[in-house]
Amino acid sequence: MNTTVTGARQRVSEHQRRFEPRFAAYFDSLTNPATGALELPPHAKFPARALDLVRDMSLRGGKRLRVAFLHEAAALATDQPGPGLDEAAISIELLQTHGLIHDDIIDASTARRGAPSIPQAYRDDFPDHPDTALGLAVLAGDLAAFLSLRVLLTCDLPPGRAAAMAAVQADAGALTVVGQFVDLERDFGPLPDLDTLHDVTEFKTTRYSVLAPLRLGLLAAGVDPAPYDAELRRYSTALGIANTVRDDWLDLFGDPAVVGKPACSDIRSGRRSYAVRALLAADTLDERERKVVQGALGDPHSDEDTLLDVLAIARRHAIDRTVQAQADHHAQQAAAVARSWHGRWRPEPVAFFEHLPAWTAHRDL
Amino acid sequence: MNTTVTGARQRVSEHQRRFEPRFAAYFDSLTNPATGALELPPHAKFPARALDLVRDMSLRGGKRLRVAFLHEAAALATDQPGPGLDEAAISIELLQTHGLIHDDIIDASTARRGAPSIPQAYRDDFPDHPDTALGLAVLAGDLAAFLSLRVLLTCDLPPGRAAAMAAVQADAGALTVVGQFVDLERDFGPLPDLDTLHDVTEFKTTRYSVLAPLRLGLLAAGVDPAPYDAELRRYSTALGIANTVRDDWLDLFGDPAVVGKPACSDIRSGRRSYAVRALLAADTLDERERKVVQGALGDPHSDEDTLLDVLAIARRHAIDRTVQAQADHHAQQAAAVARSWHGRWRPEPVAFFEHLPAWTAHRDL
Repeated sequence: MNTTVTGARQRVSEHQRRFEPRFAAYFDSLTNPATGALELPPHAKFPARALDLVRDMSLRGGKRLRVAFLHEAAALATDQPGPGLDEAAISIELLQTHGLIHDDIIDASTARRGAPSIPQAYRDDFPDHPDTALGLAVLAGDLAAFLSLRVLLTCDLPPGRAAAMAAVQADAGALTVVGQFVDLERDFGPLPDLDTLHDVTEFKTTRYSVLAPLRLGLLAAGVDPAPYDAELRRYSTALGIANTVRDDWLDLFGDPAVVGKPACSDIRSGRRSYAVRALLAADTLDERERKVVQGALGDPHSDEDTLLDVLAIARRHAIDRTVQAQADHHAQQAAAVARSWHGRWRPEPVAFFEHLPAWTAHRDL
Repeated sequence: MNTTVTGARQRVSEHQRRFEPRFAAYFDSLTNPATGALELPPHAKFPARALDLVRDMSLRGGKRLRVAFLHEAAALATDQPGPGLDEAAISIELLQTHGLIHDDIIDASTARRGAPSIPQAYRDDFPDHPDTALGLAVLAGDLAAFLSLRVLLTCDLPPGRAAAMAAVQADAGALTVVGQFVDLERDFGPLPDLDTLHDVTEFKTTRYSVLAPLRLGLLAAGVDPAPYDAELRRYSTALGIANTVRDDWLDLFGDPAVVGKPACSDIRSGRRSYAVRALLAADTLDERERKVVQGALGDPHSDEDTLLDVLAIARRHAIDRTVQAQADHHAQQAAAVARSWHGRWRPEPVAFFEHLPAWTAHRDL
């Protein structure tokens, strides 16, 4: 299995390598008076600054797993996909950019992908005008949202394909917003049950990150995804949960130096992640332990000793193993769905979808 | 001419009357598990609250001039328009809702269309959590944006029509955001020239409010708008400027009781509207007058005496007549474009487009 997991990772890297220059070329085309350019008033500076920020953040993109899902889904059906694959990849990543910009407003995040977040960049531009900075950040996110639909609709794709792909993305965009609402709701009121966390994952992440790329890939291959919708959803839901559970595991138990963000950020911010929820729901904690955990939860100034204490408590009550077992369980569910595709679809991409979940559930980053 | 202007107004009212129940039915369909429903997690409350707020604000819609432009543009070519007219009307108004929600964040507006703005409604919901309230308002605006594209793409329109209409709206959405950036830029730096104000009007308002509805109307009539694009733009640009100049005139010189918002809001907020710019650019003001105007500009706490003084200064230097003459000039340009359509297109809608500009430039509200 190790070889095949490595194979899946290599395919992700190859898709990423091919995508980056195309994404950069797309941004070049937006300011080029040739076809596809976005009209801009010639002397205005604010729109150009926004496009630069959106471009820079978009091009610092990480693994581009969504783009890999898209290409592999197309490859399930054909090695000669039709038009729309590049536009779909750009649309997917612009929708992600949109969500991250507005997320960084909602979470008051100052950093994103190793650089200042866009809200922070605007606060740096206008240190004496925080309201202007906020407004500009809202607008930068809006711009990315409209661009993510526009790229599918104004790039001379055949109308049927453009309409079908844009329908996938408009729906995914709306459902992602629904997920953001549920995410905010989760941290109000009593401890959420597991189904609520699954709803957050499904709407906030899975739909646009997994299900939409799969649908778009099949569309690019000339395949109507509708007859396969139930199994695409089962795969996406299971993979999405495995992925988010592992994210939440890494936030609590991962190596901050590898993960690239401060340890225990979910504890500090009071976010009821899968791992935090498991810790709060464990009925084996004694009174002192519960007090330590509750005291640290939502306190951005918790000191390192307190957080180490929280971690020790979590390990003592096997929260690390419980949560990891959840990730494994859902990863295995996803793999089982993909395994059923052998025979119907092309073997290499089926193997990719089969082995990717195990990687997702065990990655260190 | 008076009769024909009255005729144009009546046609606007008729389009509005027909549209309102259809818009309400669209929102009903979003929460109805039949076709077209937006998927929602069954137990979440935040998404339902957002849909309610978006619905309520959307249904308090005013004159619906955009919807009238759409229907009249379709009527230019046919009295039997094809599919897509209702979806386009809904898309246009949802895009407007999106823009207003984010505008109310940017301008910190507490009221909109005679009720609390959506940011204010959320602050009322969460008086102790201003950051949550802000995040929810950003998301409510995002939801309206995605719905405005989604309604064109997921309602079983023929794919060619859906793609063409959604392309118009995705482009209009992006350009409106560009206009919002230019609008924020206008109030930084030295006094903007007239071309900058025209750019703001063109991008922030005209494209989605006039040009997009005209294009969508022709598409619904089965007419490719591309060959007519230059004249549609000339008409839209002239009408858009006439309309915004009159808005700005009303803000300074209108009757606050009729206009429905506090007098001189542009002076108070420091917004360089057409009227405010004309006052600041007038070289006939003496030193005392200039000091009064500069003192009131951008001061939200200016007292009534000061504002009456500003008004008297503006009238003394004929700013009211200068600005109204601008509105009339652009309204006449628009009317001249529409006049050239006689013979090619159907007479009643041509008369509508010919006489609407005069109404726009002289309305009291």
